[in-house]
Amino acid sequence: MRVVDIRERSVDISRYSDPSIPSGGLTTSIVGVTTDAIRNGRPVVGYGFSSMGRFAQGGLIRERFAPRLLAAGDLDPMSGWAAMMRGEKPGGHGERCVAVGTLDMALWDAAAKIEGLPLHRLLRPRFGSDASVPADVEVYASGGYLYPDDDLGRLTRELTSFRDSGYRRVKIKIGQAPLAVDLRRIAAAAEIFPAPHTLAVDAIYSYNGQSAPAAAEALQRFRLMWIEDMCDPHDFDTLGAVARRYDAPIAVGEATFSAVEAKLLDRHAGLRRERDILLFDPVHCYGLPGYLQIVEALEARGWRRRSFWPHGGHLFSLHVASALGLGGAEVNPLSFPPFGGLADGQSVAGGRVAAPDAPGIGFETKADLIDLLRSL
Amino acid sequence: MRVVDIRERSVDISRYSDPSIPSGGLTTSIVGVTTDAIRNGRPVVGYGFSSMGRFAQGGLIRERFAPRLLAAGDLDPMSGWAAMMRGEKPGGHGERCVAVGTLDMALWDAAAKIEGLPLHRLLRPRFGSDASVPADVEVYASGGYLYPDDDLGRLTRELTSFRDSGYRRVKIKIGQAPLAVDLRRIAAAAEIFPAPHTLAVDAIYSYNGQSAPAAAEALQRFRLMWIEDMCDPHDFDTLGAVARRYDAPIAVGEATFSAVEAKLLDRHAGLRRERDILLFDPVHCYGLPGYLQIVEALEARGWRRRSFWPHGGHLFSLHVASALGLGGAEVNPLSFPPFGGLADGQSVAGGRVAAPDAPGIGFETKADLIDLLRSL
Repeated sequence: MRVVDIRERSVDISRYSDPSIPSGGLTTSIVGVTTDAIRNGRPVVGYGFSSMGRFAQGGLIRERFAPRLLAAGDLDPMSGWAAMMRGEKPGGHGERCVAVGTLDMALWDAAAKIEGLPLHRLLRPRFGSDASVPADVEVYASGGYLYPDDDLGRLTRELTSFRDSGYRRVKIKIGQAPLAVDLRRIAAAAEIFPAPHTLAVDAIYSYNGQSAPAAAEALQRFRLMWIEDMCDPHDFDTLGAVARRYDAPIAVGEATFSAVEAKLLDRHAGLRRERDILLFDPVHCYGLPGYLQIVEALEARGWRRRSFWPHGGHLFSLHVASALGLGGAEVNPLSFPPFGGLADGQSVAGGRVAAPDAPGIGFETKADLIDLLRSL
Repeated sequence: MRVVDIRERSVDISRYSDPSIPSGGLTTSIVGVTTDAIRNGRPVVGYGFSSMGRFAQGGLIRERFAPRLLAAGDLDPMSGWAAMMRGEKPGGHGERCVAVGTLDMALWDAAAKIEGLPLHRLLRPRFGSDASVPADVEVYASGGYLYPDDDLGRLTRELTSFRDSGYRRVKIKIGQAPLAVDLRRIAAAAEIFPAPHTLAVDAIYSYNGQSAPAAAEALQRFRLMWIEDMCDPHDFDTLGAVARRYDAPIAVGEATFSAVEAKLLDRHAGLRRERDILLFDPVHCYGLPGYLQIVEALEARGWRRRSFWPHGGHLFSLHVASALGLGGAEVNPLSFPPFGGLADGQSVAGGRVAAPDAPGIGFETKADLIDLLRSL
């Protein structure tokens, strides 16, 4: 295929289903990549978006990466990726990795639509580890951000709705309030998702070398599914101190964007390969080709694919987890609308979910999302 | 001061004084930050630019950081920096660090102009280590990129012109040609800047775990000033292997953009604090406040300020090196015009240079540069 047109726009996103609650001014980029391939009488358009939790990448997409893709001539997603990365120097793995990942998502959507296959079926023969891995994926519902008022009441209603929708695992956020408040939130969540190993907490990098071990100690009794992003992602000393002290799984990697950094994390952060969880986000890590470099590098060092639970909470991560046979995937049933969550009307069965059967990533199965993407 | 207007533009830059030689499509951003402070009857405007060797940051400046600065109200460079960084998550230290550093340069230029002082005199009482440190700075001439034709002849003429201008130290690039070609280039350069310790080489990340030790071995006999950026900046294993095997100083840090990563580099890359050289670029590292975090973190671990030789090759790095009492500074006499080099007509005396005496950074002392900046 050739890329003949690229549209791009920045849109506001919210951690909350109620967009009136302040959410830190978060944004994401949406892109539409038009190819010269014709299906059903029309050019195939692949769609992508950037970031759940960071910022849009419109400038880098428009100024650096879209022009390279448009100039690349005939391509597939892997050679298109190489064209985008041409001339990029080592180091500095931030922002550009998300810009590249956004366009990469759209290239995979287009490539799968051209083949008439759902993305996971396009990827599985090429990148899957084992044909016997089932197509459906273990998932958890992600949410539980601190509410500005009636926090415990709203948190309880949110988690109850997740349980009633069939989710068997859930993740809530901590670290934005004093530890005593967080412990009450966790206790309330554990009433709905009881121990062991159904409730995870995400500290959004809130602790440091002093506060992280104390927080880990206080969380010990909840027998959590995991504790995520306790500290700065490059603070390997603190990660190591927590790993030595705390039994429950530690989850890291959401803010680690390159294979070279993933190798450093493995080597120097004291992680326990049999137990800890790797959250690298396929979109943030220079897209699927970059994510595959990370999976390959860490498999070579003894990690199993079951340890990977990609961040994102959207359909692309679900396809990737299914095709690669990863441990599971995040779903954002309520956060970051309309990007999070499953296909319209899709239900969770036994805590597991299949990626859509529609060609491509299946954004067309989510009416509010495809309406937004088509508005490009 | 308040920031009342920000202008920004991307411009092409070239590694060569002859812009017809292909230079990888490099760009940089120029910014003009207009304040509400009036001097000589006109608003004070601070100027900044981004990157020698990577890419422009117009999108991030326009979409994310300039709006925060414009909304920040009354500020100085330190509080303006905090306003730009508000809501930025840990991790992902690429691109945005350069965007912030670009605007930060302009804030310091404006702040020093408002005080009527050259920047190094504004900074020295606040951040200098020692009032007895002289204002002038040890410098080296940076250049020596591979020429597409008549390489040895043109390299020889370039380095001769540096020597004739008063430079006592020089740095050339290697790694873009086979090692045998590089060894001939180094031998030619060493005829003009003889051993020991007047000639540095910059490998621009060209080697890996296999090729780096062999290259270091071959370079041993030249008794170089340093060997720079041998491999991927996060490949600490290779850096450590070279450090164990090679006597000459190793220089790193140009592509390390944050204090957390600088601490990892110190802890895990096998560097020798008494000998090796730290090239962190004040513009690339989130500007001067981010650079100061790195200096402070590494001083606390036993590094001396004499080990810091900031990358950049322009007047801002020269002011920073002078004020902080660093080991020295890069100068780009011919590369990256009109950004590199010294004030018009300024000469190098005994291998040392003083920053301009004009208020601010002194871009007004370089006619071609200030013409470009004023065109904003």
